[in-house]
Amino acid sequence: MRFEQISSTPDVCIVGLGLMGGSLALALKEAGWRGRVTAVSRNPRTLAAAESGRAIDRGFTDLAAGVADAGMIVLATPVRTLLRQLPEVGRHARDGAVVLDMGSTKAEICAALADLPQGLEPVGGHPMCGKESAGFEAADANLYRGKMFVLCPLARTTAAALRSAHALVDAVGAHPLVLDPAAHDRAVAAISHLPYALAVALVNAVAAADDPLAWTLAASGFRDTSRVAASDVDMMLDVLLSNRQNVMDWLQAYARQLASLYAALSEQDEAALRRQLAAAQERRAPLNAG
Amino acid sequence: MRFEQISSTPDVCIVGLGLMGGSLALALKEAGWRGRVTAVSRNPRTLAAAESGRAIDRGFTDLAAGVADAGMIVLATPVRTLLRQLPEVGRHARDGAVVLDMGSTKAEICAALADLPQGLEPVGGHPMCGKESAGFEAADANLYRGKMFVLCPLARTTAAALRSAHALVDAVGAHPLVLDPAAHDRAVAAISHLPYALAVALVNAVAAADDPLAWTLAASGFRDTSRVAASDVDMMLDVLLSNRQNVMDWLQAYARQLASLYAALSEQDEAALRRQLAAAQERRAPLNAG
Repeated sequence: MRFEQISSTPDVCIVGLGLMGGSLALALKEAGWRGRVTAVSRNPRTLAAAESGRAIDRGFTDLAAGVADAGMIVLATPVRTLLRQLPEVGRHARDGAVVLDMGSTKAEICAALADLPQGLEPVGGHPMCGKESAGFEAADANLYRGKMFVLCPLARTTAAALRSAHALVDAVGAHPLVLDPAAHDRAVAAISHLPYALAVALVNAVAAADDPLAWTLAASGFRDTSRVAASDVDMMLDVLLSNRQNVMDWLQAYARQLASLYAALSEQDEAALRRQLAAAQERRAPLNAG
Repeated sequence: MRFEQISSTPDVCIVGLGLMGGSLALALKEAGWRGRVTAVSRNPRTLAAAESGRAIDRGFTDLAAGVADAGMIVLATPVRTLLRQLPEVGRHARDGAVVLDMGSTKAEICAALADLPQGLEPVGGHPMCGKESAGFEAADANLYRGKMFVLCPLARTTAAALRSAHALVDAVGAHPLVLDPAAHDRAVAAISHLPYALAVALVNAVAAADDPLAWTLAASGFRDTSRVAASDVDMMLDVLLSNRQNVMDWLQAYARQLASLYAALSEQDEAALRRQLAAAQERRAPLNAG
């Protein structure tokens, strides 16, 4: 086993060149990241586009070959793909390599990261950003700028590995926030996965009624409330399934609020209705300033 | 009874100088509306601000005095205020005056408009726009530009009155859409009042859990999905109560969709979950292009 000093700006290999991975490559290049930036994608055309756009120095279609020389491996595939790729990453990454993931849920992934071979340096991560458009075509060097980037160090994570992760977060203009995986998953279920589920149910409810007029009238309120329903299905399927219990708990809590609104309306209890609308208005309005 | 020819750009009196009324005044002035633009507000400071900003030619705190000379009266107060004001408008408006409202629900208002004294020329209206910020301070000359403006002619509405309403819609840059009040109310319950109710329940569910981390992490998905929860409470209380049955029906339809998502998740039925996410994605994504 060679001893590898962890560089704070090591050669980075990004696994997955979709929206998140592609944006990371562009952001690192724009920030003048000193190490090489390579990527693994199963799609040679994506790699060619990324190489010709100078987003990466070199592309690999083979995971083992791609991760072999990197000082830092960043996993940017959907959650369940990532979980399937981890053992192979573990077999082929060099000693001392930092393994950072960008999966949207953390408990399951951090447990899998903890099982990586000794000698590797895993850190969990989740940048709090995204958009509906998927794929490298939608990648944007500014996607991470000003956004929070959650880091979940494991018991085995070394200070040096965490410093490397911080350096990458800083380079792309994001703000690091160190969190426990369980606390992360509970909170993102509330503010990301639950809103997604609501938007899906909203779109499907309106679609089921088959009233073309509703779509004609759909104004900004509907567009905003339903926006996340346009998210990538593969990504979100993985997210919901890998954060299933939290999402179910929040759906229950949400259904109680909905029932309470319905009851106030049904009973024409104006005071109760006003209380609920005013409470939401008071909590939500300050976010517009942020 | 004097005979009044309906001018296509008559003197307009706007009742209520909040976001909607204030924006209408600014838009008419910017469009070079040939008639006078006056307004009624209970707040003399709002009137002074509108006069000094040249949004209106003259302000009135007294409803009767304000509407007396107008060739067109546009009601821009919350739904239930508007319903209370209509009889007084009926007593003081001059013969031949067009009475257009901008209330968010139409069945109840159109029924009340139909009861106005003969000699008046009522038309129901609802511009499909808005924002969370309320009040004249938030008024914007471009609020109506490119937006749909629903018009609901009554059985008694004359062609001349409808032409006046069209002229006003054109002047502010909106697109007129003539609709039946019941069809309007059913559709806006789906695409405006239901999203609002969902956003309120979402914010209240997250607030009830009292997890500060959720608010810290609240990213763009949560912000968009919950945006309309910051809407003006008085306005929305009136909207929900005056479109109660439609909103309740949609809440029921929505709850069925939500239950179906929950069931797929609970049973780990990946195929059913994927079907629901994909259906929503397919319906929602095209709206991003619009």
